[in-house]
Amino acid sequence: MNILVVGSIALDTVETPYGTVTDIPGGSALYFSSAASLFAPVNIVGVIGSDFNLNQLQFNKNRPINFDGIYIEPGKTFRWGGRYHKNLNTRDTLFTHLNVFENFKPKIPGSYRKSELVFLANIDPNLQLQVLDQIEKPRLVVLDTMNYWIRRTRDTLIHVIRRCDVLILNDEEIRELTSQDNLVIAGKKILELGPRYLVIKKGEHGAILLSRDIYFAVPAFPLEQVVDPTGAGDSFAGGFVGYLAECGQFSKNNMRKALVYGTVIASFNVEDFSFKKLLSLSQITLQERYKEFKRITTY
Amino acid sequence: MNILVVGSIALDTVETPYGTVTDIPGGSALYFSSAASLFAPVNIVGVIGSDFNLNQLQFNKNRPINFDGIYIEPGKTFRWGGRYHKNLNTRDTLFTHLNVFENFKPKIPGSYRKSELVFLANIDPNLQLQVLDQIEKPRLVVLDTMNYWIRRTRDTLIHVIRRCDVLILNDEEIRELTSQDNLVIAGKKILELGPRYLVIKKGEHGAILLSRDIYFAVPAFPLEQVVDPTGAGDSFAGGFVGYLAECGQFSKNNMRKALVYGTVIASFNVEDFSFKKLLSLSQITLQERYKEFKRITTY
Repeated sequence: MNILVVGSIALDTVETPYGTVTDIPGGSALYFSSAASLFAPVNIVGVIGSDFNLNQLQFNKNRPINFDGIYIEPGKTFRWGGRYHKNLNTRDTLFTHLNVFENFKPKIPGSYRKSELVFLANIDPNLQLQVLDQIEKPRLVVLDTMNYWIRRTRDTLIHVIRRCDVLILNDEEIRELTSQDNLVIAGKKILELGPRYLVIKKGEHGAILLSRDIYFAVPAFPLEQVVDPTGAGDSFAGGFVGYLAECGQFSKNNMRKALVYGTVIASFNVEDFSFKKLLSLSQITLQERYKEFKRITTY
Repeated sequence: MNILVVGSIALDTVETPYGTVTDIPGGSALYFSSAASLFAPVNIVGVIGSDFNLNQLQFNKNRPINFDGIYIEPGKTFRWGGRYHKNLNTRDTLFTHLNVFENFKPKIPGSYRKSELVFLANIDPNLQLQVLDQIEKPRLVVLDTMNYWIRRTRDTLIHVIRRCDVLILNDEEIRELTSQDNLVIAGKKILELGPRYLVIKKGEHGAILLSRDIYFAVPAFPLEQVVDPTGAGDSFAGGFVGYLAECGQFSKNNMRKALVYGTVIASFNVEDFSFKKLLSLSQITLQERYKEFKRITTY
C-alpha cells in the first residue's frame, strides 16, 4: 500500500554535544519518508527552494520514494536552527526561516488523490485541511502536529483531529491540548474528539497506543549515545505508518506492532545527524533490533 | 522463603490534592511489608516510640508479618511530613523529626540471623552495614537508598552497594550517584561496583532491570487517579522482593517477573493514603491486574 505524506522539507542547522552541522537535509516529510520507505512506497508532497539539490539527499536508489510531488519555487528552502542541551532532552530553537514554505499551498497531484494511507506531517492545520479536501477516500489518515499550532490555531487543529483516524502527539502536547496532567484521562478526552487511535510519544520513556478498547505501552529502546534527536518524532511516525502500509490492514495487533516499529526506527534515527542512519539501514539490521526489542520487553 | 526487612517505621503527615492526613502509619519497613506479605512471610526489624500503637495498623491477621523485631523505645515515633504538588510527581518535605529513630541501632534477633532474603530499606548506610554484619549467609541482599545518603555518606553507601546483590534506585538517584545522564551507561557503572542486578524505578514511566546480560524494561500501570505517591518505591520493592521469596529461586525469568509484580503492586499503593490499599488487597485483584498488565505490554 502506498503512503502519501505532506510536510516540510528543510535545511537544518543543528548543535548537539556531538557537533554542529549546517544546512543538512531535514523537515518532517523527509524524516518520515526515510523511515517509512523501509516498509512501503512513499509519495512526498512538499516545497523546496532553488537552493535545494534533491540529488544531495543520496537516498538509496532502491528506496521507493517518489519526489514528483515536490514543488521547486524560486527562493530559499525552509531553514531551521536548533541547539540541544547537554542531556539532549531539551533544545532551544535558534531560528526559523520559512522562506518558500511561507506561501506553500499543498496541491496534491492527481495520481496521489486516491491514496489510501495519508500522513499529515507537522504543518499548519489549515494546510492539513486543504490536503484532506483533495483526497478522495483515504482508509487511514494519520496526523501529527506540535505545540505551536495547539496554541495558535487550536480551533482549526480540532477540525483536523476530528477528521483523522490516528493522532500522534508527545506527552507535553497532549497535556497542553487537553489541559489535563493525567495522560490516561487526557487520552480519553482526545479519543472523544473522533480519532480511533491516539499515539503518545514519550521520548526516552517510550510510547503508548490508546483506543477505546486498547491500552498498549512500550519502553524506549536503550541507547548509550544519542547524537541528534532531531526528527525522532517524524521517523517514529514513519516506522509506525510504514509498517501499517506494509501490512495493508489495520488490525489491533498490527497497530501494536506498528508502535514497536516506530520506537525501533526512532532509536536508529537519533544515532546520527539528519536521517543518515535511516538511509543506510538494512532490513537485517532493522529486524535484529526489533528482535532485541522483543527480548527486552518479554517476560 | 522468609524475608527480613530493616527500615523505618513512621507516622506521616501528607498533603496531596486529594486531602491531608495526619500521623498515618508509614515508613519504608511498613510500606515494604504490606506489599511483600502478599507473597511470603516477612520479619520486620525497626523502632517505634511509645506513641505508636501497633494494633492500629489493622494488618489482616492472615498476612504473615512478624512484628517481634520491632523495638519500642520511650519517646516519640519518627515523623515525616510532605506536601505533593498538583501533578503529584514532585513534593516538598515539610518536616523530618527522627525522634526515637535517631539512636536506632538495628539488633537482629537471633532467629532472623539465618535469613536468606534480606531487604535493606532506605536508612543510614552505616546501619545497613551493621545489619549485614549480623546476617550469617544471605542468598540475596536487596538494597534501597536515597539522594540524602548519596550526598552525605557516599563512601559508606558504596561499601553497602558492593555487598548487595540487587540495588534498587530511581532514575534521579542513579544519575546523582554516577554523575552520568545516560541511564544505560550509569547502570553499567553501578554494576561494576558489584551488584548482580540494578533496578531503575522511573515512576509514571515504568521500571528497568539491568544486569551484565539482561536489559528488561516495563512501562508503568496506567492510572487515572493517583491519590498519594508516598511509599510507591517501598511497595515496589515489596512486590519485587516478595515475588522472589515466593519463587524461592532467583532465575533471570523470575527477576523479570518480579519487576512486573513490583510495578503492579506500586500501582495499587498510590491509589489511597498510607498502605491502606495494600492491606485490603486480595490475591484475586492482584492477579487480575497482573493479567491486565500482561495485556497492555504484549504484542
